[in-house]
Amino acid sequence: MADFKFEPMRSLIYVDCACEDYRPSLQRWLYKTHIPESISQFEPYVTKYAFYPSYRMPEGGESYGYARLQLTEHHWLVSDLDPRLGIKALQETFPLDVLVWQGNLPASALGKGQIETEGDAGNAARQTNDAEGNPFIFAFLPMWWEKDIKGKGRTIEDGPNYRFNMSIGFPEGVDKAEGEKWLFEEVIPVLEKAPECTRILASQVKKDINGCVMDWTLELWFGCESEWRKVMVEDVKSIRKPEWAMTDTFPYLKPRHNVISCAVGDYTPFNNLTNYRGYITMR
Amino acid sequence: MADFKFEPMRSLIYVDCACEDYRPSLQRWLYKTHIPESISQFEPYVTKYAFYPSYRMPEGGESYGYARLQLTEHHWLVSDLDPRLGIKALQETFPLDVLVWQGNLPASALGKGQIETEGDAGNAARQTNDAEGNPFIFAFLPMWWEKDIKGKGRTIEDGPNYRFNMSIGFPEGVDKAEGEKWLFEEVIPVLEKAPECTRILASQVKKDINGCVMDWTLELWFGCESEWRKVMVEDVKSIRKPEWAMTDTFPYLKPRHNVISCAVGDYTPFNNLTNYRGYITMR
Amino acid sequence: MADFKFEPMRSLIYVDCACEDYRPSLQRWLYKTHIPESISQFEPYVTKYAFYPSYRMPEGGESYGYARLQLTEHHWLVSDLDPRLGIKALQETFPLDVLVWQGNLPASALGKGQIETEGDAGNAARQTNDAEGNPFIFAFLPMWWEKDIKGKGRTIEDGPNYRFNMSIGFPEGVDKAEGEKWLFEEVIPVLEKAPECTRILASQVKKDINGCVMDWTLELWFGCESEWRKVMVEDVKSIRKPEWAMTDTFPYLKPRHNVISCAVGDYTPFNNLTNYRGYITMR
Amino acid sequence: MADFKFEPMRSLIYVDCACEDYRPSLQRWLYKTHIPESISQFEPYVTKYAFYPSYRMPEGGESYGYARLQLTEHHWLVSDLDPRLGIKALQETFPLDVLVWQGNLPASALGKGQIETEGDAGNAARQTNDAEGNPFIFAFLPMWWEKDIKGKGRTIEDGPNYRFNMSIGFPEGVDKAEGEKWLFEEVIPVLEKAPECTRILASQVKKDINGCVMDWTLELWFGCESEWRKVMVEDVKSIRKPEWAMTDTFPYLKPRHNVISCAVGDYTPFNNLTNYRGYITMR
Amino acid sequence: MADFKFEPMRSLIYVDCACEDYRPSLQRWLYKTHIPESISQFEPYVTKYAFYPSYRMPEGGESYGYARLQLTEHHWLVSDLDPRLGIKALQETFPLDVLVWQGNLPASALGKGQIETEGDAGNAARQTNDAEGNPFIFAFLPMWWEKDIKGKGRTIEDGPNYRFNMSIGFPEGVDKAEGEKWLFEEVIPVLEKAPECTRILASQVKKDINGCVMDWTLELWFGCESEWRKVMVEDVKSIRKPEWAMTDTFPYLKPRHNVISCAVGDYTPFNNLTNYRGYITMR
Amino acid sequence: MADFKFEPMRSLIYVDCACEDYRPSLQRWLYKTHIPESISQFEPYVTKYAFYPSYRMPEGGESYGYARLQLTEHHWLVSDLDPRLGIKALQETFPLDVLVWQGNLPASALGKGQIETEGDAGNAARQTNDAEGNPFIFAFLPMWWEKDIKGKGRTIEDGPNYRFNMSIGFPEGVDKAEGEKWLFEEVIPVLEKAPECTRILASQVKKDINGCVMDWTLELWFGCESEWRKVMVEDVKSIRKPEWAMTDTFPYLKPRHNVISCAVGDYTPFNNLTNYRGYITMR
Repeated sequence: MADFKFEPMRSLIYVDCACEDYRPSLQRWLYKTHIPESISQFEPYVTKYAFYPSYRMPEGGESYGYARLQLTEHHWLVSDLDPRLGIKALQETFPLDVLVWQGNLPASALGKGQIETEGDAGNAARQTNDAEGNPFIFAFLPMWWEKDIKGKGRTIEDGPNYRFNMSIGFPEGVDKAEGEKWLFEEVIPVLEKAPECTRILASQVKKDINGCVMDWTLELWFGCESEWRKVMVEDVKSIRKPEWAMTDTFPYLKPRHNVISCAVGDYTPFNNLTNYRGYITMR
Repeated sequence: MADFKFEPMRSLIYVDCACEDYRPSLQRWLYKTHIPESISQFEPYVTKYAFYPSYRMPEGGESYGYARLQLTEHHWLVSDLDPRLGIKALQETFPLDVLVWQGNLPASALGKGQIETEGDAGNAARQTNDAEGNPFIFAFLPMWWEKDIKGKGRTIEDGPNYRFNMSIGFPEGVDKAEGEKWLFEEVIPVLEKAPECTRILASQVKKDINGCVMDWTLELWFGCESEWRKVMVEDVKSIRKPEWAMTDTFPYLKPRHNVISCAVGDYTPFNNLTNYRGYITMR
Repeated sequence: MADFKFEPMRSLIYVDCACEDYRPSLQRWLYKTHIPESISQFEPYVTKYAFYPSYRMPEGGESYGYARLQLTEHHWLVSDLDPRLGIKALQETFPLDVLVWQGNLPASALGKGQIETEGDAGNAARQTNDAEGNPFIFAFLPMWWEKDIKGKGRTIEDGPNYRFNMSIGFPEGVDKAEGEKWLFEEVIPVLEKAPECTRILASQVKKDINGCVMDWTLELWFGCESEWRKVMVEDVKSIRKPEWAMTDTFPYLKPRHNVISCAVGDYTPFNNLTNYRGYITMR
Repeated sequence: MADFKFEPMRSLIYVDCACEDYRPSLQRWLYKTHIPESISQFEPYVTKYAFYPSYRMPEGGESYGYARLQLTEHHWLVSDLDPRLGIKALQETFPLDVLVWQGNLPASALGKGQIETEGDAGNAARQTNDAEGNPFIFAFLPMWWEKDIKGKGRTIEDGPNYRFNMSIGFPEGVDKAEGEKWLFEEVIPVLEKAPECTRILASQVKKDINGCVMDWTLELWFGCESEWRKVMVEDVKSIRKPEWAMTDTFPYLKPRHNVISCAVGDYTPFNNLTNYRGYITMR
Repeated sequence: MADFKFEPMRSLIYVDCACEDYRPSLQRWLYKTHIPESISQFEPYVTKYAFYPSYRMPEGGESYGYARLQLTEHHWLVSDLDPRLGIKALQETFPLDVLVWQGNLPASALGKGQIETEGDAGNAARQTNDAEGNPFIFAFLPMWWEKDIKGKGRTIEDGPNYRFNMSIGFPEGVDKAEGEKWLFEEVIPVLEKAPECTRILASQVKKDINGCVMDWTLELWFGCESEWRKVMVEDVKSIRKPEWAMTDTFPYLKPRHNVISCAVGDYTPFNNLTNYRGYITMR
Repeated sequence: MADFKFEPMRSLIYVDCACEDYRPSLQRWLYKTHIPESISQFEPYVTKYAFYPSYRMPEGGESYGYARLQLTEHHWLVSDLDPRLGIKALQETFPLDVLVWQGNLPASALGKGQIETEGDAGNAARQTNDAEGNPFIFAFLPMWWEKDIKGKGRTIEDGPNYRFNMSIGFPEGVDKAEGEKWLFEEVIPVLEKAPECTRILASQVKKDINGCVMDWTLELWFGCESEWRKVMVEDVKSIRKPEWAMTDTFPYLKPRHNVISCAVGDYTPFNNLTNYRGYITMR
């Protein structure tokens, strides 16, 4: 058997809640069913597993494919997509309903039971790309940020952060170098100039891991929602629309397909490997 | 010294976030500063200390004084208002800003530093009742619900719950018995009839503890936000407006003064005494 | 409302597994469903909650009503039987099957769903006393042992203990003083004389709490199963059969009705309030 | 110094309790002495360390070398047998008595003190292969199961599992390919056909790690002990006895030498790295 | 049986290390043996159990009976001296050596084995008052400080604290009121005037609990050791020597008999009920 | 991007406290600020992170560059000095004061604010080598000791250990082989002969990781401080002064520059990844 590759990585899943009425059901599945099943499986090779609850979607967030539930983060020692990891003693409990709640499948899939799979329900689900829904975005990154573009040296004592985490994938057919030229020479400078944006970090998505459509993940920090809007709704109007634009407004990418995002805080109580104690309910 | 009274109680604080831009600051204070300071003080006599994040405020929530941040819950073995508990080796760090963020003081109080106090900043803050802000509502209840009105026997397997927790205080001058007659004979029957409302629980507020303005705390459960709206916005229109009504729509009480509420889920990750590990931030 | 009484108590439940085939089901219900539901309810007023797995039933154990699963222990600050504690926001998930698995109901009750109850399924279940099954024994004791009869001063360094915990209830109609005379003047001396029995502790059952049929709980320690047999099968043959004997062999009480027991070790990993992390399964 | 190889592995130790009277002593050593000493040593490079208590040995279990105490599981990032890991600041406390209690040495070795060793008592003990005892079986496997033969897609909601974990080593001199042909073409089909067997998983033992005598580890799941017996005692009678049979009944291998096993549940409270809090004893 | 009294208390034990060479042995007993044995016993009725390591003894500390190991703190719900708590299933492992290491017995008691006791070794030890050693000081206080004399309102953000905790007992025969007059009218004013002393807290010792010789416990905070010396060695020279003085220098009390103390920091890692995980050693 | 190298390592930082008055400030920074910031950053790739408090500096300790605060230990899966790890979303809060408190900068640097850095304050600080202070010593070692020179087979039951951990770097210009000849042929034999020295372990410092000046790390165990002095002050007088001696007494190396050390116990409560719960302060 070939050796397993030591490949420290971080992955992000942008979890939307397609309709507010789905929220109690989706959270229940995550907290009651999914956290313990995930820990059961990957405790030996995942070293941090956290949920970062989304701030409320700001006005203008829709253009960025804003995920209204949470950012799910894993840190891996090996690639979860190595085919040898696909054998699980117990398959995840993953009803199709979950994919509807997350907006990956249309409402017509509700009540259709467990996802059909070859045994690895989680990764099957994470490859969902249904014409009537939004693709399930699962982006792998190096364990450490690759580019420190603005705000180097910011400490936790400098104040709370409204961290806007966004992944973008250039449209099919666009030359990646060309897309990056636009990103780094036309987009980033606008953000760098805005005083409300205190920090810019970026990494390339490791597309080879799972064929993720996204190319880059960025983190842009602000002090609060209004500052986000000032920059991400107003300032960005000055950014040139590229030839390959998919929409009329920045970021000129198809929301939830070529751009996805959510804003989160610095802290999360959902550091699941260390904090989870079972589904303890309110009295 | 008189003996300390064994008095198992539960208390609820309805924490609003007066403006979305305050959210990162308010959460940072709660998670970075307030949780460890609270545990430091009351670990020996508080037996459960939890934050339940609010669901998004539904349309119509404003009439109920909907708290947009969280419900804070403590379980006590002795009354926190026994004057002997007022001596703290370390006073809580409680800037006036926090009271602005929570809507208890007007924005003009921002940046004015720490609350002035005789040493017990927390309880001083919790008595805030500023003419330009909303009162700080801190309601003590028996440790166990007193009335089980509807839905007895519901289990966690029966589905997720959209738990609407509401406290009401009859207006000054209204006879309490009269208020309760209206509540139990005119209001509750409407909720009992509504199939969307799966559970009704109630307790009297222990007003003697801290002079809280509220009289009753109710918990009304629904399956989701739409079900809440169907009952709490539509069905309640049939409820008679009492002579002492403070507003034109149900619950006919002044929001954030005589009625306060928030909707929460069954589970919280913020079971602070057991889960808190320090302010561990996102990488 | 009357004050709650501060009443530090310990309670014991002797959990049998009526048929080996029920074991996986019974354990699954306990570890997956019951532990988190229990913690959800009583975390604020129970201070220790542990399961002690039974050693294998020794030959001769049947006469003692040996419980083949575990001893369940709670430490309470208030009586769980105070009627005010009967209101639970969420009722325990307690299928009748559990009572069959534990031997409290006959197999004919399998598959009949959730126990019928006025809302407090747990205490309803714990009052089970079906003619075709064994009663559910739930014995309350003071938080501290009342009588230290033999082995005072034994420390954990003196070796491992095979702790035989037994509760007995004198038959209906027997004068308690007379029963105790037999117990303390005829039974205990035999145990005191046996060198294999290293420790004897006893407490009266607080029958007033829940009407438990048992009168006394004893703990008798041995080094191992053979030592137990030497004393509890052989030596006890010398003990006089009382007039009120219900059976022909010591302890002359009807097993699982008037005598119940199990042998456990010093240590348990199931210190649930501090150790439980959810139903994390084997990979 | 050569680099350390990243080699994610799982290992299994089948721990027997040779005589019921040894159980309290063996458990005391494991829980009081061995768990903290093990964590002290390997906390930095072992990522999960669990004990799965054995179900009672079923009738017929003896032919499978059924281990009556537990299955001990580790997940490693590097091989514990790399000679560089043999230097320990503190040697494990490993009396020869432990090896008697586990059946690896005859009773005549009792009371002979600590195992003689070059400093790494644990691995010295784990190489025990005494003519008068049973070998100490320590099987390394890849971190993930290699073959998913039956029951793919089973989830934790499908019911409790009686997981029979068995390792087999073909007798010396038997061609491995021939042994495997018998295993996969004659044995497995019988299990696949039995409806009571819900799941079959298999991995090759990594014999190169420590020269373990075993070749394959299988996990066969049933609903309960009776189902196990129906298949593993009755159905297997139809399986052809191979030329190299060491015994007259299936699995035709010498118990505790060429076949070893135990049945465990899905859940364990002994997830030691996260749950252990010291040897906290019953009151 | 009389009811147990709800009596929330805090107790302090000043643990000296009589000779530096005893430190490794004393710490080993505390961390390896005593913490788990204590938790085993009192987990159900002690709500916080912490060790605060002493800062190095400052010059001049000897006059204050400075304890060179730690301050041990418990928070109790009932009195540990209620005779009913004296029955322990397992007696604490408490060798006389420990009392030598702590300075309670002379070195001649070394190697004499376990303390002789009626079963409750801990409380027997805590009553040690040997003519050749120093008494074992175990002071019970109300759970909350009784007097807030200086520095009300200090928060954790105001800087680190060198907290000097001191208990004093007026000599036998001295009228308590007279002693207190001297303490509050002559001593405290000197401390109040000293700017280096940032905080003064005081409580009466609950002598009725266990007959402790001490009358008052004070906590005096400074920024560091030099500030302590400036006040507690220099400034105190101005304090009048009372008629009943036992020594020639302030505090005019016999060290380790009528005055005992130690300086500790704000934080301790030894919050044993929540942090202890067993005796995990350095690799 | 080049692959990350799997490189299991352990690192040691010897933390001095240059003046006793700095201790409260230095501890506050470590426990309140540094632990949570460190965990936030490296939780995914550091597998053990512990502080071992120093025993009091023994007479004679100064010659060994004795660190008076603690030994800080990390276990890494990748090198912290890989430049790709230098990008941190949040920079550590690292005031220059900390370096003064630790003796790395002169007192004149107090109050000068945060260290100047390119974003990675921690590693910038750890490269401090100021002419007026002592260098910051950060030594990387293999995860396992390389040489087991004396005391192989010692177990935790053999008694408490006064573990003297010392790193030495031969002076610039000295041939390493020559230095090692002196170390292993002249120094070690003296220690091997001394009965008070119960254990000798050694590893080469991985100088390639961060250019650390040290060459070897040794651990020498004794029973207590006096035994240390007997060997490390008296016995070592017999060791030949090498030609390259930097001082007149053993170890003939410049303290805190070419030799650094501290003595610690077996146990630490500061196993930060598992024990830290936030800055919970004394009441």
